[in-house]
Amino acid sequence: MKSLLVKNIILDNKTTSIYCEKGKIASIGVERPADTVLDGRGFPVHPPFINSHTHAAMTLFRGNGDDLPLMEWLQTRIWPYEQTIKPEEVYWGTKLAIVEMIHSGITYFVDMYWDFHQVARAVEEMGIRACLSAVFIDFDQPEFARQQRETNERLFSEMGRYSDHVTFAIAPHAIYTVSEESLLWAGEFTRRHNLYLHTHLSETQKEVQDCRDAHGCTPVEYLHRLNLLSDRLVAAHTVILTERDIELLGSHRVLCVHNPVSNMKLAVGGVYPYRKLKESGAIPALATDGAGSNNNLDILEDMKIAALLQKHHQQDPTALPAPEVMQMATTNPAHFFKYPCDTIHLGGPADFILLNTHRPEMIPMHNLVSHLVYSANSSVVDSVVCDGKVLMEHGVIEGEEEILMKAAEAAKQMFGRVDFP
Amino acid sequence: MKSLLVKNIILDNKTTSIYCEKGKIASIGVERPADTVLDGRGFPVHPPFINSHTHAAMTLFRGNGDDLPLMEWLQTRIWPYEQTIKPEEVYWGTKLAIVEMIHSGITYFVDMYWDFHQVARAVEEMGIRACLSAVFIDFDQPEFARQQRETNERLFSEMGRYSDHVTFAIAPHAIYTVSEESLLWAGEFTRRHNLYLHTHLSETQKEVQDCRDAHGCTPVEYLHRLNLLSDRLVAAHTVILTERDIELLGSHRVLCVHNPVSNMKLAVGGVYPYRKLKESGAIPALATDGAGSNNNLDILEDMKIAALLQKHHQQDPTALPAPEVMQMATTNPAHFFKYPCDTIHLGGPADFILLNTHRPEMIPMHNLVSHLVYSANSSVVDSVVCDGKVLMEHGVIEGEEEILMKAAEAAKQMFGRVDFP
Repeated sequence: MKSLLVKNIILDNKTTSIYCEKGKIASIGVERPADTVLDGRGFPVHPPFINSHTHAAMTLFRGNGDDLPLMEWLQTRIWPYEQTIKPEEVYWGTKLAIVEMIHSGITYFVDMYWDFHQVARAVEEMGIRACLSAVFIDFDQPEFARQQRETNERLFSEMGRYSDHVTFAIAPHAIYTVSEESLLWAGEFTRRHNLYLHTHLSETQKEVQDCRDAHGCTPVEYLHRLNLLSDRLVAAHTVILTERDIELLGSHRVLCVHNPVSNMKLAVGGVYPYRKLKESGAIPALATDGAGSNNNLDILEDMKIAALLQKHHQQDPTALPAPEVMQMATTNPAHFFKYPCDTIHLGGPADFILLNTHRPEMIPMHNLVSHLVYSANSSVVDSVVCDGKVLMEHGVIEGEEEILMKAAEAAKQMFGRVDFP
Repeated sequence: MKSLLVKNIILDNKTTSIYCEKGKIASIGVERPADTVLDGRGFPVHPPFINSHTHAAMTLFRGNGDDLPLMEWLQTRIWPYEQTIKPEEVYWGTKLAIVEMIHSGITYFVDMYWDFHQVARAVEEMGIRACLSAVFIDFDQPEFARQQRETNERLFSEMGRYSDHVTFAIAPHAIYTVSEESLLWAGEFTRRHNLYLHTHLSETQKEVQDCRDAHGCTPVEYLHRLNLLSDRLVAAHTVILTERDIELLGSHRVLCVHNPVSNMKLAVGGVYPYRKLKESGAIPALATDGAGSNNNLDILEDMKIAALLQKHHQQDPTALPAPEVMQMATTNPAHFFKYPCDTIHLGGPADFILLNTHRPEMIPMHNLVSHLVYSANSSVVDSVVCDGKVLMEHGVIEGEEEILMKAAEAAKQMFGRVDFP
C-alpha cells in the first residue's frame, strides 16, 4: 500500500500537512516523501460523511416516476424493471452511485440491494467502504425463505474474497415482507456471527397499522418480541413511533436512520422524532435512501432538509441545530460502525475530505459547520481520501467518464426490456 | 450591442444553434457570424429562472446565527450590523449574491434592501435583470414616514440613469412596520406610476394575530381595505391565510411568493397553500429569500424543498409535481413581470441557460424537469445568457475572484464594527 502526503491544508485553524501510511494517519505537520502527493490548496480538512441507508444501484431509476402514489410508483415504475435487472446493470448503477457519493464526501455507505457480489465488486474497485447486504424478502413463502437463508449463508461464507472495506450484514427488508421464521433466523444468525442487521422499520402509517392488526403490537415491539433489537440493528426510517417504541430503540442503542427527503417525497405521514430518539439513547443517523426516492445521493442536501424538517415540525427554529445534524452523518454512525473517521488524529484511519471554501456559498466564512449544513451542496467537496488513497482529486474521480456512459447504457437496456408506461 | 452565436445546443430534442442580436433571439438553426461565439457542448438550452423575493446583500450575513429564535436572531445577529452597514458593503454583498444567482441560472431577481443605488449599480455591472426597491419602514413615526416617502419619490425620479435591466418598485416592508398612511401613499404612488409593490405578507402567526388585534381583520383583508391588492403586488410568503384571504389574493391576481427554506428554517408555523392559491387565480412563484435565512441563493434547491414540503404537508406524494414547481420559477413570474423568457422563441429575449447534463446526478436522463427539481443543484447550470450577453461561460463568471474577496472583506469590516456575541 502506497504512502500519501496531503500538504497545504487547514487543520484546527493551522496550515499543516498529513502523511498517511498503510491506510493510517502516520504524521501530522511533518512533510515526509511519499508515493503520492496531494496539494490541499489551503483548504480545510474535514471528517468524511457516512450514508447510513441507501439502495445504491437504484440510481438507474432516478427520475423514472416522481409525484406518484407509493404503490403505483412501486408497481409501475420499480418492480417490473427490478424483476429483470441484470448483474452488470446492478454493477454500473452501483458505480454511478459511488461516484455521486464520493463527490458528496461519503467514504462509507450502508446498502441493501439485489446481487451482493456486483455491489461488493463496485465497492472494492472504487476504493470506498460499505456495509452491504442482500435484500431478504420471502413474502411468507417457506420455499422462498429457505432459498434466501441459504443464499445469505453462502454469501457470508464467501466474504473471504473481499478486503475489510466490505462489511457483511443481513437485511430482512421489513416486517411486512419477511416471515417471522426468517426474522428469527436473521436474529440468530447475526447474533452468532456478530453481524449488523439492516431493515426498514416503522416507515409508514400503514406498516404500523398492519402490524397492530396482525401481531397486536407496533413493528418495534414486534422486533423486540423476536429479540432483534440490539446495538447491531440498523433501522431505516423509524418515523411512526410510540413513546414505548422510542424507549425500546433507546435501551437497545439501535441506529435509527433518518431519510428526510425520501420520507417527505413519499409523504409517509410522520416525522422522525429526532430529539426523543436522541434522549432515549438511540443513535440518530442520516441517509439519502436510494435515488429512486430522493433523487440524488448528496448527503449535504439531506443535512439541510433534516434540520429544516425538524424546525418546521416542532415549530421551533432551534430544533436540530447544525452541529447535531452533522453528527448524524459523522460521529454517531462512525461509533456505531466502529469506523473512527469522525476525528482527524494520529493513528486514525487515513479517511478525510478537503473542502473548497473558495466558493460563493461559503463566503463570508462565519461558521464552517453552518455553511456545510445550510449553504453548501456536494460541490464544496474538493478531494476525498479513503484508506490512504485519493478517491477524488480536485473534483476528478478516475474512470468517472466511463461510469456515466455505462450507467446510462445500463438504464437504457433495463428500461428497454419492459413495456410499461 | 454585440451579436452572439450559441452553437451546438439541444433545443426540442434537436442539435441546433441560436443567434442573438440586440438582446433578442434573431435566428434559430442558422449559424451566422457573430462578435461572440459560445460553444454549447451539446447541452440542452433551458429558460432561465426568476427569483421572486430576496434581500441580495444579506449574503454578508450567511451563517452568522442559525438555529435561533426569530427575534433573538434579528436583535443580536442582523439589526445591530444593518444599522452600521456601509454603501460599499451593500454593493459587494449584492455582487456576491448576483454571482450565486447567475451560477443558479437566475437572470431576474426581485429585491428589497437598503441603499437602492448600490444594488442597482451591482445589477447593471453584472448584466443581470432585477426588480429593485428600497425597504420602506416607518414604525408609525410621521417624520420617518415623510423621509421615506421623499426618498422613494427621489429614487423613482432618478431611474433615468439605469437601463431597462432595472425595474423600480415600492416596498413597504410589512403591515407591522409601516403606518397606514404610508401604505395608502404606496398604493396611490404605484397606481399612478404603474409600479410593482413589494411587501412581506402573512408570514407568521404573530403577524396575523397582531393584525386581528389592531385592525379586526387579517393582513390580506387589511391590504384589501387599503386598496393595495392588485396584479402589481408581489406578496412574499403568504403562509398564514384564511379561505377569504386566498379568494382576495386570487381575484386580484397577486404574485404569491413561496420561500420554503426560509419558512421552514424560521419555523413560521404554517405552510404556503399552493393548490388553493393556484386554483384561486393567484400567481404562485418561488424564491430563495435572503441568505440570512436560507442560507444560499440556489433556486433549484428551493424547487425541491417546495415540492417536498407540499407532499409532506398534504400527506400526498402527488402534491406540487415537478412541472408545476418549475413554472413557479419560470412561466408564472415571467408573465407577471412581463419578461417573456419562459420559452426560447424567435424574437424573444436572448435570455437562456445551458444545462450540463453530463453529470452523475443527471444520469440516466429519464426526465429533465424531474432531474432539475429533484436531483440537480446549481452546479448543473453550465452557462447563462442574459440580454444577448454571456454572464457565465462554462461555470466562469468574469470578476468572480475579486467579488468573493471583496465580499469577504466587506463582511469582516461590518462585523468588526459592532461588539456583539
